[in-house]
Amino acid sequence: MNDKVRSLIRENNILLFDGAMGTQLQDRGLQPGQSPEEFGDRHPEVIGAIHADYLQAGAMFLTTNTFGGTSFKLPHSLDPQAFNRKMAEVARGVAGTRGFVAGSVGPTGELLAPLGKAGFAELVDAFARQISGLAQGGADLILIETQFDLGEIRAAVVAARRVCDLPVAVSMTFESGTSLTGTSPLTFLDTMQNLGVDLIGTNCSLGPEGLEEIVRAMLPRARTPLLVQPNAGLPILENGRTVFPLQPQAFAERMTRFPALGVQGVGGCCGTSPAHVRAMAKAMREVRINLQSPTSHPDMVLTSRSTSVCVGLEEPMVVIGERINPTGKKQLTAQFQAGEQSLAMEMAVQQIAQGARILDVNVGAPMVVEENLLPELVSRLAARFSAPLSIDSSKVEAIGAALECYPGSALVNSISGEAGRMESLGPLCKMFGAPFVLLPLAGKDLPETSTQRLKIVESLLRKSEDLGIPRHLILVDALALTVSSKPESAKHCLQTIRSCREEWNLPTVLGLSNISFGLPARELLNSTFLTMAMSHGLCAVIAHPGARRVQEALAAGEVLLARDPQAKSFVRNYSGWAAGDGAVTVKAADSSTASAGAARKEVGTL
Amino acid sequence: MNDKVRSLIRENNILLFDGAMGTQLQDRGLQPGQSPEEFGDRHPEVIGAIHADYLQAGAMFLTTNTFGGTSFKLPHSLDPQAFNRKMAEVARGVAGTRGFVAGSVGPTGELLAPLGKAGFAELVDAFARQISGLAQGGADLILIETQFDLGEIRAAVVAARRVCDLPVAVSMTFESGTSLTGTSPLTFLDTMQNLGVDLIGTNCSLGPEGLEEIVRAMLPRARTPLLVQPNAGLPILENGRTVFPLQPQAFAERMTRFPALGVQGVGGCCGTSPAHVRAMAKAMREVRINLQSPTSHPDMVLTSRSTSVCVGLEEPMVVIGERINPTGKKQLTAQFQAGEQSLAMEMAVQQIAQGARILDVNVGAPMVVEENLLPELVSRLAARFSAPLSIDSSKVEAIGAALECYPGSALVNSISGEAGRMESLGPLCKMFGAPFVLLPLAGKDLPETSTQRLKIVESLLRKSEDLGIPRHLILVDALALTVSSKPESAKHCLQTIRSCREEWNLPTVLGLSNISFGLPARELLNSTFLTMAMSHGLCAVIAHPGARRVQEALAAGEVLLARDPQAKSFVRNYSGWAAGDGAVTVKAADSSTASAGAARKEVGTL
Ligand SMILES: [Zn+2]
Ligand SMILES: [Zn+2]
Ligand SMILES: [Zn+2]
Repeated sequence: MNDKVRSLIRENNILLFDGAMGTQLQDRGLQPGQSPEEFGDRHPEVIGAIHADYLQAGAMFLTTNTFGGTSFKLPHSLDPQAFNRKMAEVARGVAGTRGFVAGSVGPTGELLAPLGKAGFAELVDAFARQISGLAQGGADLILIETQFDLGEIRAAVVAARRVCDLPVAVSMTFESGTSLTGTSPLTFLDTMQNLGVDLIGTNCSLGPEGLEEIVRAMLPRARTPLLVQPNAGLPILENGRTVFPLQPQAFAERMTRFPALGVQGVGGCCGTSPAHVRAMAKAMREVRINLQSPTSHPDMVLTSRSTSVCVGLEEPMVVIGERINPTGKKQLTAQFQAGEQSLAMEMAVQQIAQGARILDVNVGAPMVVEENLLPELVSRLAARFSAPLSIDSSKVEAIGAALECYPGSALVNSISGEAGRMESLGPLCKMFGAPFVLLPLAGKDLPETSTQRLKIVESLLRKSEDLGIPRHLILVDALALTVSSKPESAKHCLQTIRSCREEWNLPTVLGLSNISFGLPARELLNSTFLTMAMSHGLCAVIAHPGARRVQEALAAGEVLLARDPQAKSFVRNYSGWAAGDGAVTVKAADSSTASAGAARKEVGTL
Repeated sequence: MNDKVRSLIRENNILLFDGAMGTQLQDRGLQPGQSPEEFGDRHPEVIGAIHADYLQAGAMFLTTNTFGGTSFKLPHSLDPQAFNRKMAEVARGVAGTRGFVAGSVGPTGELLAPLGKAGFAELVDAFARQISGLAQGGADLILIETQFDLGEIRAAVVAARRVCDLPVAVSMTFESGTSLTGTSPLTFLDTMQNLGVDLIGTNCSLGPEGLEEIVRAMLPRARTPLLVQPNAGLPILENGRTVFPLQPQAFAERMTRFPALGVQGVGGCCGTSPAHVRAMAKAMREVRINLQSPTSHPDMVLTSRSTSVCVGLEEPMVVIGERINPTGKKQLTAQFQAGEQSLAMEMAVQQIAQGARILDVNVGAPMVVEENLLPELVSRLAARFSAPLSIDSSKVEAIGAALECYPGSALVNSISGEAGRMESLGPLCKMFGAPFVLLPLAGKDLPETSTQRLKIVESLLRKSEDLGIPRHLILVDALALTVSSKPESAKHCLQTIRSCREEWNLPTVLGLSNISFGLPARELLNSTFLTMAMSHGLCAVIAHPGARRVQEALAAGEVLLARDPQAKSFVRNYSGWAAGDGAVTVKAADSSTASAGAARKEVGTL
């Protein structure tokens, strides 16, 4: 049956969902304070009757009475899996072959650590039990709805993927522009698209007008069909009772605007009734989906809980701050060995101030248990900074643990051609919707020529395709090797950048500082090479964001590549520029921090 | 008959020239101090006998007794044209259908201004009269030989082209590495290849061993067949008489080494006799030409009298100093209007010190007669500096006059798509072997896109092909337009650079400073764009060579593009580099000159 839902989506049909369950239950005997789940378990015939009304009204999707169906919310008397299965069976019985069953999965009420105390694995387990019940009971679609936290949603999606292969719809609720824990509609969309869910939606909190704004915020990058389930207007108090004022006909008229915007799924949330669905179903007969092409089409989007960073030819170059890495840094190594993170947190502050839009996080050093420290540091950085992270480790377990506690789409750095690496990390990245750096290294020899590099890329792409990993999760490292030992390597790197674009339309990244190893004036060579690489289509760079020449190269490069409209940003920052201002300023900035000693030393290794 | 010689050359036959005329004449009655021409005019039967001996000995080419056959050297009693015709007829009569007649054209004995007092037109006229006589008398080839001045050779070649369409061989004589007026074998070769002569050679002064060194110096860039005519060893004094010691067999053995090096034409100069030619002809039967591919293959070579500057993908970027141009420079304009040149000469010194390898020369300003001032300034610059010049004018007559007085292959800046420009300047550039900048402008509108630019390039290429202009004279201006008004123009410029290479294998140049017009931090934008353009294959840039950021971009760029072997030059110049050193130094350098005020002002307009 799930293939049928996927076909329905693919064939661009309007998907008619049903309306509210809660308000219907109140009309049919649910007492204030009583759990709808408990009520439903006792009176499945009432639930069935509501489903039947919605089906009769024209709904294609009947939503199970399982909104609070995880162990966190269910009364202890109810077994989550059995309860969810029972509710799904009720809906299934009514839908028969005339409709589909959407298994409702609401929030657990718990917050993931560090915001709350729930662990990722704990949430996944709870969702998994609920969803396996829904699947067993005959659900056609898992509808993760009315969610407000990106991390929790991810746990639910991971759980759904673990226990079934049903299509997954995810719907978030937004108040005053962001979700309760700070996620914007666009960042929600970006993260969900990375996860590869089947429908992305918004529901509850607002009426059709309010949700139209949310939808419009998502549209510029929406490649996935959208689902909208508004309340019947904004609630008002009438005689001490909450009332949703939008009447069926008015609601239905409002709802017809969504297909015109390209939205595929429509339904109702709080305050909507079979009458609303009937009016909507009727109104939708006159309407067709006006498919919108995204106006922004980056190659890749990285997200934190609150922020999206686009990577692509039409996007400004993305600087990935390289400094949280103990290699060659004594003080940082010592801190990591002692389990301390203050220096890393300072480096994060500094790099963001210097223009890094992603922070690479590497804790690999002798006597550091990366599996413990990496997720811990990632978690702290994620709680404090909005810049998405790049999780950099040679240890698959450490990366897995870090991905679990990261709410957005972190970058995984990296998957090379090393035996078994793609097989172990690839599925992890796919499951977590985590973009990754594809590193064209295989075997002992460095691939000097672009031809050699492209061959490794090609073989890794084949593997990733076999694993079902979508292209928009792949960022190729073009390999900046040291020109002092391999003089042609810069040219091969530029060619690799171009070929990845021409052959596979893939974006590229590189670690900048290698190129100048062993030569004087490294910042000059680095910034010059960065300029070249930008002009050949490089999209991101792993670098020290404080290097003034690198900043200048980026600023001037954006103007020349027509990505700084009217050169506004350049004019703002460089009007007083003179060629003589240089690393002097950078050094001053570095030495003004508490970690001056370490920072100065590291500037020296640029 | 001239097609037959051209076929012989093309079909890669060894071309056997004859030996000395002078020493043969002495053996047959020429008195010390007597003119060989006068003697020949009186005793044509003796000349014929010598020719017959050489033909008998195996020579394919009989060289006319016209070495001193211009009006400058001939006795007044002899009419140049009639004399040369007569001597050619003598040779022709002997050669019949069994051999070819090479019409000898030696130096006039006069030096071109400013080295001497002969004018270019005067020399061309004298050579033209000689050569038309040779052609009328039945010469198959014009052999401009034993020459020592590049400018005079050019006059002879221009004369040959004016009066006949015979193939032209040009042979220079070198002493201690360069010709008498300072031209190296390679620069001679480069200039002659630009002129498109049929055979390029060296003769006289040295024996086979000495000329082998000359030939080896030419080989790396020789695309044109070579001709070698050594003396019979280095002369020694025997009983008060000059004797050439190399005997026929030894001479012949030595000569067999030349075809092994790829040399196609062999013969003898002073001291060689029919016996030498006979031995050589016999020895050559055992030998085949071992064609050598050039090891250096720039797209284009510009030359002065003494220096070659290669332009190409495997060559370092060539900086064309832009400063000798009165536009926006009050003091320089005033000087040009007063016919003064001291400031321009200072700018030349300065720009060369700053790294310019070509100097652009533009004198265009109101009330300046370019047809007079441009050749005058070009002449002075050519006499003092070894850097080749770029002759920059909108006036065809001014360019023509400047080309006449320039001994090497100057760059003509430029031929646009303007009506009639290619038709008038193209043949001039071809005649003088002058490479030119092909500027893709036509009509009133600037071509914004690379597609538009390439269309104009294509149409100009078609015209130039119709005019018989070889590709190695063409350098395309990729057009750096102002990004502040046309944001995509930098990208189109980069695409134009790539497309010219991919579609026509043509090198590109651009005027750098336009790109940043109207924006702050112009030197930063200029140097950043230069870096990008270099990495896309730009070969030359018209710029202010004193801009420190531009110098840095070039130095770092050469390392990254693998054109600074072992980064030696970079390490030498940038070991003490710090990002903070910048235009400060440049300004200091500028203000240390006599023209500090003007220089500072112009730095400001960068
Ligand atoms: Zn609701
Ligand atoms: Zn000689
Ligand atoms: Zn390129």
